Amino acid sequence: MKALVTGAAGFAGRHLIECLLGQGHDVVAADRNQPAVPYPEGVESVELDVIDEQACWESVHAARPDLLLHLAGMARVDLAESVPDLCRAVNIAGTQNMLSACLDGHAGVRFLLVSSAEVYGRVDAADLPVSEDHPLCPGTAYAVSKACAEMHLQHAVARGLHAVVARAFNHIGPGQSDDFVSAAFAHQVARIEAGLQPPLLSVGNLEAVRDFSDVRHTVTGYLACLEAGQPGDVFNVTSGAAIKIRSILDVLTGMSSVPIEVAVDADRLRPLDVPVFHGSGDRLAVASGFRPRFDIEATLADVLDYWRDKVEKLSPR
Amino acid sequence: MKALVTGAAGFAGRHLIECLLGQGHDVVAADRNQPAVPYPEGVESVELDVIDEQACWESVHAARPDLLLHLAGMARVDLAESVPDLCRAVNIAGTQNMLSACLDGHAGVRFLLVSSAEVYGRVDAADLPVSEDHPLCPGTAYAVSKACAEMHLQHAVARGLHAVVARAFNHIGPGQSDDFVSAAFAHQVARIEAGLQPPLLSVGNLEAVRDFSDVRHTVTGYLACLEAGQPGDVFNVTSGAAIKIRSILDVLTGMSSVPIEVAVDADRLRPLDVPVFHGSGDRLAVASGFRPRFDIEATLADVLDYWRDKVEKLSPR
Repeated sequence: MKALVTGAAGFAGRHLIECLLGQGHDVVAADRNQPAVPYPEGVESVELDVIDEQACWESVHAARPDLLLHLAGMARVDLAESVPDLCRAVNIAGTQNMLSACLDGHAGVRFLLVSSAEVYGRVDAADLPVSEDHPLCPGTAYAVSKACAEMHLQHAVARGLHAVVARAFNHIGPGQSDDFVSAAFAHQVARIEAGLQPPLLSVGNLEAVRDFSDVRHTVTGYLACLEAGQPGDVFNVTSGAAIKIRSILDVLTGMSSVPIEVAVDADRLRPLDVPVFHGSGDRLAVASGFRPRFDIEATLADVLDYWRDKVEKLSPR
Repeated sequence: MKALVTGAAGFAGRHLIECLLGQGHDVVAADRNQPAVPYPEGVESVELDVIDEQACWESVHAARPDLLLHLAGMARVDLAESVPDLCRAVNIAGTQNMLSACLDGHAGVRFLLVSSAEVYGRVDAADLPVSEDHPLCPGTAYAVSKACAEMHLQHAVARGLHAVVARAFNHIGPGQSDDFVSAAFAHQVARIEAGLQPPLLSVGNLEAVRDFSDVRHTVTGYLACLEAGQPGDVFNVTSGAAIKIRSILDVLTGMSSVPIEVAVDADRLRPLDVPVFHGSGDRLAVASGFRPRFDIEATLADVLDYWRDKVEKLSPR
């Protein structure tokens, strides 16, 4: 089948393309940015900024995909909070544009919106692991944008589109920006190993417990949602693991070829709004057989290798 | 206390003002339209279109209310579907504007958003009466706009606003536009009584079962939500009654001073997407003691008298 991926040049997008190719699909990769590393051979690349309604229509109608995986969006919670209007334009209007483009003459497509577990907001410990039927209580501009995008998707379903929602929990892996915690740690470990910074790793609060997946498993989950979902279905894509940030740090420092000291930076030590947060993947498991799993050692070894490689390429000889 | 009401000149707004005055509050009535009938004495009137961000800020900061009841919005589901962009501007951006106006220097206010039971979308019979924790699955542009407005409200709560949501079910009473079913019936009965149309009432599908309240009870419920609600709380405001549209017609024709024949109009006979829909008011009852109730005869007598009076004033001598 033919799959159109928006946000294709992003972290999850790149891994999703590999997954789609591995399953024998043809891929059209749409992104407003050129990919940092060229797409794999055979992938068709399209320049697309999803806030451009007309361009969305043209992309969909040029590609006429069987599957549309809508990943394009502002992904950083902190950034979204500082530019909420842009966040809304990209995440809400961008989703509306893609939905409308399909409804307007290409409604036979199967559409996946990648949303986020952030839409749940604060969840009482008694309600963990959180299931898809938990009320939405978005507490950030990013979370609001994803929740609203989901609402527009449901409206598109009522008008006849076969569309489903994947609520992604935290996912990590090679290629992620070091704006995210495991990549930030791994980048520093690689720099320390290369002698580019003193063997001191400065960290914030390590006590948060989150639902981390390997991105390669997450994107497999996206395809499972698309294959198993009925129109309007919503699925958590989880790892089934509740991992303390400290564990990620411990594994990474344990893999370091040199001893590393960890220092808690008081400036980074904010109180935790949500100490523990993880999701139930039961619905997707029942619908598709997709099983949450996470091998923290294997994933973090890949993450660290990615950063070692990057540091080596960037460092002065 | 001082209460600012948006959408004050509308159907529910007018009844809410009476209710607020009855409880001894001072009222500032904000609307983009002049009221059809002057506001009661002592009510301060402010012209406000909620899509104007600056005007929202000025209204809030001029009035500095203790209570803000945000009713302004596009209320007709059919109209919203034909002008979805305007619906979003009024119902979503309008709500954001009022929330932002409060957060920016007047966060001590208690804020109520009037949302709608439409946000639930189609609900399985097994889940009726629907409770507030049911997932949102909006199937119309109107429902999406209200669901998104709720999401923005939750974000404002996370930033410190004391805001709550009232999800209104159907409410009827004197003053409602005859775009709505009970008013449409009553208007025709009054015209037939006055000899302005033949004694034949043309109707569509009468089998839908809905949760009708008297608007005067509904607005009392809004105040109960505001008084009892914790920040972020969501309450259904229901009647506790599941009433067939046919019953409304039967009561109104039974009150007619002349015999009326009812004819089903095949053009109006669309299949029912949602045959039965009603809500649980338990949460509000527990929080505030507010009890759902509905006296169909008393309410419809008032509705019919309203239309008799209106027909008499408008008819040629």
